[in-house]
Amino acid sequence: MIKRELYFETESDAQLLKGAYDALEEEMQSGRVGYYRLPESDMLMQIEAFTEAFDFEGKGIRNIVVNGIGGSSLGTKAVETLLKHTPERNSRRLLFFENVDPVEIAENLEGLVFEECFFITVSKSGSTIETTSHMKLLIDHFDAPVGSEKFASRFAFITDAGSPLDKLGKESGVPVFHIPHNVGGRFSVLSAVGLLPLTLLGYDTAALLAGAKMLKDSFFDRQEDMLVQKAHYYATHSREIPINVLFSYGSFFRDFNAWYVQLWGESLGKIDRTGAHVGMTPVGIIGSIDQHSFLQLLIEGPRDKTVTMIKVDDFEKEVVIPEISLPNLEKTDYINGHTFGELLKAQCDATMESIIQQGISVDRIEVGRLDAYNVGYLIMYYELLTSLCGHFLDINTYDQPGVELGKRILQEKFQS
Amino acid sequence: MIKRELYFETESDAQLLKGAYDALEEEMQSGRVGYYRLPESDMLMQIEAFTEAFDFEGKGIRNIVVNGIGGSSLGTKAVETLLKHTPERNSRRLLFFENVDPVEIAENLEGLVFEECFFITVSKSGSTIETTSHMKLLIDHFDAPVGSEKFASRFAFITDAGSPLDKLGKESGVPVFHIPHNVGGRFSVLSAVGLLPLTLLGYDTAALLAGAKMLKDSFFDRQEDMLVQKAHYYATHSREIPINVLFSYGSFFRDFNAWYVQLWGESLGKIDRTGAHVGMTPVGIIGSIDQHSFLQLLIEGPRDKTVTMIKVDDFEKEVVIPEISLPNLEKTDYINGHTFGELLKAQCDATMESIIQQGISVDRIEVGRLDAYNVGYLIMYYELLTSLCGHFLDINTYDQPGVELGKRILQEKFQS
Repeated sequence: MIKRELYFETESDAQLLKGAYDALEEEMQSGRVGYYRLPESDMLMQIEAFTEAFDFEGKGIRNIVVNGIGGSSLGTKAVETLLKHTPERNSRRLLFFENVDPVEIAENLEGLVFEECFFITVSKSGSTIETTSHMKLLIDHFDAPVGSEKFASRFAFITDAGSPLDKLGKESGVPVFHIPHNVGGRFSVLSAVGLLPLTLLGYDTAALLAGAKMLKDSFFDRQEDMLVQKAHYYATHSREIPINVLFSYGSFFRDFNAWYVQLWGESLGKIDRTGAHVGMTPVGIIGSIDQHSFLQLLIEGPRDKTVTMIKVDDFEKEVVIPEISLPNLEKTDYINGHTFGELLKAQCDATMESIIQQGISVDRIEVGRLDAYNVGYLIMYYELLTSLCGHFLDINTYDQPGVELGKRILQEKFQS
Repeated sequence: MIKRELYFETESDAQLLKGAYDALEEEMQSGRVGYYRLPESDMLMQIEAFTEAFDFEGKGIRNIVVNGIGGSSLGTKAVETLLKHTPERNSRRLLFFENVDPVEIAENLEGLVFEECFFITVSKSGSTIETTSHMKLLIDHFDAPVGSEKFASRFAFITDAGSPLDKLGKESGVPVFHIPHNVGGRFSVLSAVGLLPLTLLGYDTAALLAGAKMLKDSFFDRQEDMLVQKAHYYATHSREIPINVLFSYGSFFRDFNAWYVQLWGESLGKIDRTGAHVGMTPVGIIGSIDQHSFLQLLIEGPRDKTVTMIKVDDFEKEVVIPEISLPNLEKTDYINGHTFGELLKAQCDATMESIIQQGISVDRIEVGRLDAYNVGYLIMYYELLTSLCGHFLDINTYDQPGVELGKRILQEKFQS
């Protein structure tokens, strides 16, 4: 169960709403944008057939090693960090070869036993330089050359059909799962990109898809006016209010925030059809920690931010604050006997009130319980919101031309 | 060795420079602002005397448990994450009771053996609600009531002289280390707040202070015009360019970025003397990961950001990208035989060039090697820069009045 409330005024013009619903409907129907259909794809069946045939338990796979960066890792990380304390999570370790940071890489390799690992290389283009470099390292480190039985038996690839990685997989007997051509990396967590590793960790990925489908269906049934209105407000105010803050209460949201930052920043930071630089800057912060870091800026700083609060009602674990009165600290006794979860929730509410009192545009997403269904819903919520903002900004939400220049310069540096 | 370069035009008016040097000199000489003098304080001697007398090794202390939030934890975390792979780091575990997230708290408590722990409770005010709640929990969980030998033998407090926590410590026989009154939480990492836990982890905290002192002395010798000019540019452009991005290359910068976000946001987000809401929004991102997330927004989005790149030259560990040519992926061979560190550095340079080509104001900090001395220097660099920006914005850099309202509302929620 997820409740949503907006604490600011929005437009509810019927034409505006219809235009937005129509635009996303057209993106879906034309096949130009594919993520809308991920909750209904048969990928999960493919994955389940594969995992059953592979026999991960029998083969003693203890480590799921994801080799990917950006859209190839952030979504999986987000779900893992939100759900890792739920009972369905099995005891396998999840490891990422993500950054090309040599210190992190050396640490990752330490004590890793090849036979206990299953390596998932994820790259939409199939030629991401970080990811291919990591794969070369893994091949070399474990003496598992392309073409060997060893390589074919412990790797899987997730990539676009026809990509260099797809071809490599087919030629070397490595199982390959495809990302639909019309699904961008940052919108791909509900494709094989997220579903394969998350299923191997024991998560209820069917529920993840069901939660996403629920909101998606509600949207295409045109029941999500508030979502459209929020996006319209954000887009039409993006010059005066260029920063969107996601203030999530609970440390388990850290990687979800990072996923949101990529989705929002890369989708909405664009040159629009008139040649203007448009976009909104995403900032992810964590409560209550960042009440001690970012809140002062929200309250007294420039009025250039909207704020979305995420609050969780039920925690997987709870801890009571003991009825102890500390000498000289009796004034903190008001919290005694309450739980840490109650404190966290009350801090979220109190902070929200203090921000609203400043006249800042705030909305709240209240999550009943962090389970796969609700996380799927949250993912679809932010994906739809991003598409809607892109519609109102009149940009191409789904490309990322700005990152190409740096890639060209990089290659020149090594080839000169 | 740290090199710094600015790639944008700044003012070098002599009066402007003198005014800034004079202002910070006055803050220091008047005793109003205390962090400038931390590199010369005798706190480290106090700490060394304490640790020697306590005999941590002999008592079998395996876990350093820091109980604190915001300025009481972020600095220690930043240094730990930057330096944890250096040879001086001992094998003790560092643990934080920081957020009031019940899931994290339950995880933290698991398997923790009291006799192997040393608990450091850090709160400048001495009554932070998160921190006192955690302390109550620890007292209860380990059955170590205030006044018991058990409590007195395994806790230390770091707080302001005269605070409720200071009094509690004195009354219950717990060693207390003081934060100078004129040092704010977010400027306190070089006080006992950082020095005690970091010394107990084996770090060369004398070198940390020496690095900070080096830059501080250079500044008060009036040799740091570029720092003043950068701050002047940021402050005078803060309306058109309200966002400052710290783009640090290497995952080990993650917590340093978080420390910078607090320092910058809480210091500079203020109501100025004319009643206007001023400030700049800090955003910390990590290369190369965020080339796949935030770079598109930098390159094509609104021109509302400055960017500081941090690059490291020598890594504690290095890993070579093997000379393997993957079928169909031959175009990635240009990187073969180079190290991951070389790739990371080249990505930093290439990305920087691509951002500069957009006309965005960029500067670079190049760190020879991540060691305690250079990290101390980096800390002082950002502290001085923050003070200088506050001077040019004409605000009180050192208070945080905006967070009080939320605290009052919170208390009312529990008392009604």
